[in-house]
Amino acid sequence: MADQDARTPVHTGPPALSVIRWDDPPGGPAVVLLDQTRLPAEEAELVCGDVPALVRAIQALAVRGAPLLGIAGAYGVALAAARGEDVARAAELLERARPTAVNLGYGARRVAARYRAAVGGGSGPEAAAAAALAEARALHEEDAAASERMAQYGLELLAELLPGGGHRLLTHCNTGALVSGGAGTAFAVALRAHREGSLRQLWVDETRPLLQGARLTAFEARRHGMPYTLLTDSAAGSLFAAGEVDAVLIGADRIAADGSVANKVGSYPLAVLAKYHHVPFVVVAPTTTVDPKTVDGTSIVVEQRSAAEVTELTFRPGAPAGDEGGGTAVAPPGTQAYNPAFDITPPELVTAIVTEEGVISPVTGVGLAELCARSSQVTIS
Amino acid sequence: MADQDARTPVHTGPPALSVIRWDDPPGGPAVVLLDQTRLPAEEAELVCGDVPALVRAIQALAVRGAPLLGIAGAYGVALAAARGEDVARAAELLERARPTAVNLGYGARRVAARYRAAVGGGSGPEAAAAAALAEARALHEEDAAASERMAQYGLELLAELLPGGGHRLLTHCNTGALVSGGAGTAFAVALRAHREGSLRQLWVDETRPLLQGARLTAFEARRHGMPYTLLTDSAAGSLFAAGEVDAVLIGADRIAADGSVANKVGSYPLAVLAKYHHVPFVVVAPTTTVDPKTVDGTSIVVEQRSAAEVTELTFRPGAPAGDEGGGTAVAPPGTQAYNPAFDITPPELVTAIVTEEGVISPVTGVGLAELCARSSQVTIS
Repeated sequence: MADQDARTPVHTGPPALSVIRWDDPPGGPAVVLLDQTRLPAEEAELVCGDVPALVRAIQALAVRGAPLLGIAGAYGVALAAARGEDVARAAELLERARPTAVNLGYGARRVAARYRAAVGGGSGPEAAAAAALAEARALHEEDAAASERMAQYGLELLAELLPGGGHRLLTHCNTGALVSGGAGTAFAVALRAHREGSLRQLWVDETRPLLQGARLTAFEARRHGMPYTLLTDSAAGSLFAAGEVDAVLIGADRIAADGSVANKVGSYPLAVLAKYHHVPFVVVAPTTTVDPKTVDGTSIVVEQRSAAEVTELTFRPGAPAGDEGGGTAVAPPGTQAYNPAFDITPPELVTAIVTEEGVISPVTGVGLAELCARSSQVTIS
Repeated sequence: MADQDARTPVHTGPPALSVIRWDDPPGGPAVVLLDQTRLPAEEAELVCGDVPALVRAIQALAVRGAPLLGIAGAYGVALAAARGEDVARAAELLERARPTAVNLGYGARRVAARYRAAVGGGSGPEAAAAAALAEARALHEEDAAASERMAQYGLELLAELLPGGGHRLLTHCNTGALVSGGAGTAFAVALRAHREGSLRQLWVDETRPLLQGARLTAFEARRHGMPYTLLTDSAAGSLFAAGEVDAVLIGADRIAADGSVANKVGSYPLAVLAKYHHVPFVVVAPTTTVDPKTVDGTSIVVEQRSAAEVTELTFRPGAPAGDEGGGTAVAPPGTQAYNPAFDITPPELVTAIVTEEGVISPVTGVGLAELCARSSQVTIS
């Protein structure tokens, strides 16, 4: 650690955001969320005292982001168990709250399986509920630990790719503490770089149409005192042309077996720009994001979202992001919109994938499979 | 013309938009504008009875777009002449209304010169005012004729580049009748293709931060019954990847002597995407856009605009576009933004430049100079 100390880490900034937590006051247990629909205007907590309240919060996007949804699903099932409710039914309700969110179902099913095992092993309801809560907490901690490892591997990769330090990093969408049990994925790497004194600039894409970059990433960057600047997504081209971007760091919604990366729409144009300008394009995501059943990029079905997200400006603090109707129309009535939720970046445009198990570069299907085999992911039925 | 008839042109749609016109009711003459700040919600006319009213309209962006500003400046000086006011002073006021708009000063100075010449030649105030108005009308008609010629040359180029017809064209910002005395530049080509039955799809980039694509291009496309679809700027990447774009058509704010194109921010990323996907990237602009004094792209100074355009959603129908303050904050307080008004596309990424004098492809400084030499542009002191 002498080497670490020699770098005189800065470690400024506030403690980690409390994005989700289990609370157990005399009135009964609850899952307490930071209400993300109120950011950046307000840091308000949302107390979910039962599963239906948590389902509503998930559907309103008060809690969002793949790993964080897994944790929410896990605590939700633990909540049902603590309240003596039907645990299998609760897991089903939570999983259905956002059917395309793979992690949500994973978290809910994992805790339900633990509860079942406890009951099957002769535990009474209270002991089984305690086992369920312990399992949810374990998932939460695993996720935070994965963030830490990704941040460290990512920082080491940056040091290798950009030996001069003073990194100017460009990111897209939100990949920080607001999507995770820990510091996040791509954002966690930038935050680690900031704490180690090697971040010169974080360029934050606003990320149309739902503006997660402006609303959430800028909020997190500001909270940590990071040097950040917001831009419209298409202004990134000018930054590349001016030589102002040293590396792109993004997260991933899903990674196919061949290393194709599905991520927030706007990632692929950044990958093409990065390639054209010989700038590293780095994906940071836990191994749980890799879906071995999805053979390649063409097998990934891209969700088309509502035209209203593009034809209307719907942002009102406290209103669910992407809420339809009630916004100010910016396009003429009847305008159709092409509004894919994410895009696919082929492996040949990805310099490296950073996971909690290590880094692969170049990105190959074989390398990815080896990395995933190392993962200690709990397998559930 | 037998060939034309064989194509059975469709020629659907309404007559040309009345974006600017001279009116001479009993109460005195006026310049009447379509108030672009009220689009697409409302087609409202703004009657400017004197030069200060027109200056205010220009500053509020009720009238905008390089060629159209030239026409506005020209009519403004004619208005001062008709009212018996100080014509030189009026030209100065108009030119200063938006100092970076080259065409505005050109139009104002050209009409003022004609007025001076008439007075110098012995005309009385009324005859000189009539000469000034005739000059403004001539500029207006020249611009409309240039649009027609660009549309025709552009259509011929598309037929050559994409012999199959059924064009799927992607455009950025607004380049139609709302910026011109005629049908515009890039948009005019798409409109001509629509009328000739060869437009299958017009993809319209929303064009952050001021949303000229959503607000204005979608408005014009809908008005003409064109098949159009709106998208966020960064969703264009997915369209290229899916093979859904046959050509990109954009306008230009300024073209340097080497063929570097300054245009609305977001044009350069499209050029890089087009290159990567082997899709033609076509710039449509009158020869007046070429600035021989600007040697190359690096000589073009890029205007940085207010951070509020990015950190706040300021769109309210009737409010000036880019109006600062009073919007809904989407980013945390104190957030800095990188907000260049335009970007530079180097000639090697431009497949062709279409002007009213013909097409150059490949784009070279020599070819551009030859084309400009053919231009019948009126030179004024």
